[in-house]
Amino acid sequence: MGDFKLTTIEEFEEATNRLLETGAKVGADSWQLRVKNQTPHCKFGEQGICCRICSMGPCRITKKSPRGICGCDAHGIAGRNFLRFTAGGAATHSDHGREICHTLHTVSPDGNYKVKDSEKLRRIAKEWGVETEGKDIYELAHELSEMALLEYGKPFGVQRWLKRAPEHTQKLWHEAGIEPRAIDREVSTAMHMTHMGNSSKPEALVRQSLRAGMSDGWGGSMCGTEFSDVMFGTPKPVDTEANLGVMKEDEVNIIVHGHDPSLSEMICEYAEDPEMIQLAKSLGANGINVAGVCCTSNEVAMRRGIPMAGNFLQQENVVLTGACEAIVVDVQCIFPALGPLSKCFHTKFITTSPIAQMPDSDFILFEAETAGENAKKIVRAAVENFANRKKELVHIPQLKQKATVGYSVEAIIKTLDTVTNSQIDVTGTTKPLVDCITSGVIRGAVAMVGCNNPRVRPDSAHIELMKKLIKNDIIVVLSGCSAQAAARAGLMDKRAKDLCGAGLKRVCELADIPPVLHMGSCVDISRMMVLASQLAKDAGVNISQLPLVGCAPEWMSEKAVSIGNYVVATGIDTFLGVEPQVSGSDQMVHWLTEGIRDWVEAAYTVELDIEKLGDAMIARIEEKRVALGI
Amino acid sequence: MGDFKLTTIEEFEEATNRLLETGAKVGADSWQLRVKNQTPHCKFGEQGICCRICSMGPCRITKKSPRGICGCDAHGIAGRNFLRFTAGGAATHSDHGREICHTLHTVSPDGNYKVKDSEKLRRIAKEWGVETEGKDIYELAHELSEMALLEYGKPFGVQRWLKRAPEHTQKLWHEAGIEPRAIDREVSTAMHMTHMGNSSKPEALVRQSLRAGMSDGWGGSMCGTEFSDVMFGTPKPVDTEANLGVMKEDEVNIIVHGHDPSLSEMICEYAEDPEMIQLAKSLGANGINVAGVCCTSNEVAMRRGIPMAGNFLQQENVVLTGACEAIVVDVQCIFPALGPLSKCFHTKFITTSPIAQMPDSDFILFEAETAGENAKKIVRAAVENFANRKKELVHIPQLKQKATVGYSVEAIIKTLDTVTNSQIDVTGTTKPLVDCITSGVIRGAVAMVGCNNPRVRPDSAHIELMKKLIKNDIIVVLSGCSAQAAARAGLMDKRAKDLCGAGLKRVCELADIPPVLHMGSCVDISRMMVLASQLAKDAGVNISQLPLVGCAPEWMSEKAVSIGNYVVATGIDTFLGVEPQVSGSDQMVHWLTEGIRDWVEAAYTVELDIEKLGDAMIARIEEKRVALGI
Repeated sequence: MGDFKLTTIEEFEEATNRLLETGAKVGADSWQLRVKNQTPHCKFGEQGICCRICSMGPCRITKKSPRGICGCDAHGIAGRNFLRFTAGGAATHSDHGREICHTLHTVSPDGNYKVKDSEKLRRIAKEWGVETEGKDIYELAHELSEMALLEYGKPFGVQRWLKRAPEHTQKLWHEAGIEPRAIDREVSTAMHMTHMGNSSKPEALVRQSLRAGMSDGWGGSMCGTEFSDVMFGTPKPVDTEANLGVMKEDEVNIIVHGHDPSLSEMICEYAEDPEMIQLAKSLGANGINVAGVCCTSNEVAMRRGIPMAGNFLQQENVVLTGACEAIVVDVQCIFPALGPLSKCFHTKFITTSPIAQMPDSDFILFEAETAGENAKKIVRAAVENFANRKKELVHIPQLKQKATVGYSVEAIIKTLDTVTNSQIDVTGTTKPLVDCITSGVIRGAVAMVGCNNPRVRPDSAHIELMKKLIKNDIIVVLSGCSAQAAARAGLMDKRAKDLCGAGLKRVCELADIPPVLHMGSCVDISRMMVLASQLAKDAGVNISQLPLVGCAPEWMSEKAVSIGNYVVATGIDTFLGVEPQVSGSDQMVHWLTEGIRDWVEAAYTVELDIEKLGDAMIARIEEKRVALGI
Repeated sequence: MGDFKLTTIEEFEEATNRLLETGAKVGADSWQLRVKNQTPHCKFGEQGICCRICSMGPCRITKKSPRGICGCDAHGIAGRNFLRFTAGGAATHSDHGREICHTLHTVSPDGNYKVKDSEKLRRIAKEWGVETEGKDIYELAHELSEMALLEYGKPFGVQRWLKRAPEHTQKLWHEAGIEPRAIDREVSTAMHMTHMGNSSKPEALVRQSLRAGMSDGWGGSMCGTEFSDVMFGTPKPVDTEANLGVMKEDEVNIIVHGHDPSLSEMICEYAEDPEMIQLAKSLGANGINVAGVCCTSNEVAMRRGIPMAGNFLQQENVVLTGACEAIVVDVQCIFPALGPLSKCFHTKFITTSPIAQMPDSDFILFEAETAGENAKKIVRAAVENFANRKKELVHIPQLKQKATVGYSVEAIIKTLDTVTNSQIDVTGTTKPLVDCITSGVIRGAVAMVGCNNPRVRPDSAHIELMKKLIKNDIIVVLSGCSAQAAARAGLMDKRAKDLCGAGLKRVCELADIPPVLHMGSCVDISRMMVLASQLAKDAGVNISQLPLVGCAPEWMSEKAVSIGNYVVATGIDTFLGVEPQVSGSDQMVHWLTEGIRDWVEAAYTVELDIEKLGDAMIARIEEKRVALGI
């Protein structure tokens, strides 16, 4: 116990600097160098007032030229850009969900993919009004996969999952006109509205941005999460480790990177194949070690305890260790830089998805129907590559922390059940947590999510904010790269309870949890929406009344904006540490930070000073407590 | 006959200049002024090497910074931008088609919308394998509308319309992997592939660009065209007039502008309502005059002979006449500038679609279910506004030309039937046209399409190219703003045959057609694909062997790129007079101008010198003749 200590940002950076020295030796490029070359950024782009939507332009808004050639002003341009940014994110998350639904369509008792959580499948079937009685579980899986796939393209009606929200929330959505119809339709509508000569009214563009975000969080992402759980198992608490030190000098290191668990689950399976392990040994390795980067890592960590090598801005570092036999990627957030970088080492950069095809990579098509053989081919290629490792380039920073992960909503409720008095309390609810919040033992909760962004000292905002929040008895739920930052720092080690205020510390001890809970990958922020809905129902209040806020302190991708939009639309105030590219329009800033509150009872706060961002969140939580009279 | 003379570009410009004088008087802005303020354009944007896809950037490619922060290079950035550009266009056209399918779902014998071409509906039903026997035509319409709507979102399979193409073309599509699945899915896939950390390989991005374009032309656009015909009638030759002189000083002028005929058809209906005409007269007007701008204009011109006031870069001119009581818009290509401009006059700028919401407009929601009352409200607002006209600002340039329009594929075939010898020839085919081409009486055909763009002297490229082509015995089929340029110049007056070479002139006389044929709005380029398919089948050759090329000399919008992609993908070489924003990547330039030929037997040619562009098209047509041995 006594020897527990967080890993500091300085230690992270020291390790990175040592790896960059190796990089320099082999002439490798790095994001740190590229940031220098790309700075300063174009101000028009940063402020959202550059329009490239037709070929009359590009047009840029200045004092001298307040309108583009078509007559669109700064507000219309920034609004269109914001909506397209959202649409990019919504399409991306949702397409991930679609892949999962298609994979579900291939499940069979003796196939590559099986139903692992049949109870969850039956629960969803009931929710969707599907008869389960006497139905084979695989038949049911196929039926539900087809229904889910139709959520992407049905000509009429709105998303099925919306009914999970409290009635008050559903009413707000209906009145605001932001209930998403078919998922893909919201993306297409967004593209249409922003095409030359369509909407230029910020209010309309912001409204569709919320609806497109909703089609992600309460549509595609929720499909992704729920049916991943059905196939790969619903996460429950599991111990793992995090940071580059999880890589092993004497083993074949296969790094899985990206977002879709269909691939990484299979890689994990075949990395345990005795034939492969034997092959590794024959080549002088002591075994095969799979570790993850980004959300693919979160997926397999949550379900299998596979260690997490790093998050978004660490992806080059895994190659720079010189000990990475293969970095196997599926989709999203994969640096094209990995192509040329891997060429400086023996590393195989293996792309697998038609969605993410990159130069300087080995493309091994991965498909659900042939997943087993594809995965085996990939693992074999990695293992055989061990022989090519250049020993003189190997350096694995010896930094890692223990982490307990796997807090799905189901797991959280089960954990809460352990602290109820089963003699008198109802189980299977979030009431124990509600009680803690009502009594003030816990002041509130923050859902912290999102990426890294070189605009912020990597991971510093995530980690400093978490430390501040738990110290103030605010429990933190995490996903995506934010969660990995926490794990790498040590905040998911249960011993981190000592960093909490007295109230939260007591709760951590009682429930045997770390003070920050890993809820999954970025697609799994849908889990947080379900949790918030459950809390509101169990507390008998509206979601917007809960002392709960969202936070993305280092966000970078379009997905993050789509997420932000559905989190806000769900009634959760959301705090950003990086500016959305709308600052060139005071109207857009108004709509996002104030105007939308009239529709959804929540809005954005942007604050680049991390200390102030933390203070603002705590203040908002305390305000909400006061309003509730607790 | 003797007094026929084309209107020159100089006369167009003179009229515009006179209107701009009025504009200057009332302090109006204009696109001409805004172009000055926006020039020079950002080179990074023009060359496609500015990336704004995540908030780490924007990043720009220079010699000093050859990669963005993620490591994406010029080729990946230009490729992603190109694919997103295409996706914007495909989504836009297709969403127009979707609206039409939804409108079809509301048809009823006593409703706002009816089935006007039941024969065409039955033909499509047969094509789609739907039983028509004994089925009520409205029941059939509803059934087909639901099937068509599912083309947007079906989880499995590819587009139904693909089967219209020659088998060889279908085989090419299959082998190239560019058969579009559900229409919206191709848009979402495009957005996903281009999201941060996905595809950066030009080949993959170009392939999806073709597939997304295909989902438009052989998907959404085809739905739009076909079901518009079913509801509003399949166009047949009809006489009309074109240019600003169609506006009437002594009548209420209602300008319809945009793309979706659902609105304009209803406006035309209610403009003929005796109650409305009576109201107009009571206010001192001699009647109600409806005229069109852009593709909405093409739609009602093709079906009703409604005059065409102007194309894209004329939209401000109609307001500047001071005689426009209302400019009523639906979707796409509508200048936001119309808002402030209309405020300088008495003109009401009436927006009607949730897709196109603009500041400084009167929004009157137009919905299929309440179309009649919505349209009446709009017409009434326009008529009542006649009283507010400021006489001193009224100036309508007295320029107009006669035009014969309405050349749907059905109409073209019917026209060709008139020149067959019904005793011995088969009717209902394109064979007479094939024979003319084979014999060399007509050398070939050009499909000319697309917008205006201030980068080109407005309409000059369209008109000069058409003159050159017909002089060389090349027949021209037109759509969109290109068609309106022709009509305004007088090229759709049958007397323009005198500008043709001897062969084409003879054909025009024999078939009683103008030398350039108006095939409809930009969504109707699907008609051209059907015609090309029919020609290839009737000639017994592949589409790519036909002496037929596509041309967009003044294109501007994302839709144009989507169109270009499906035209090329159909095997038709396409010539552009404005550069796609990919010139910063030699790889992208290679793929578009050469590489794709290996997949689809056609590619792009870009040539900014219009004279050379025309020569290149003629040369390509002659090459194809030589290859065929004709």
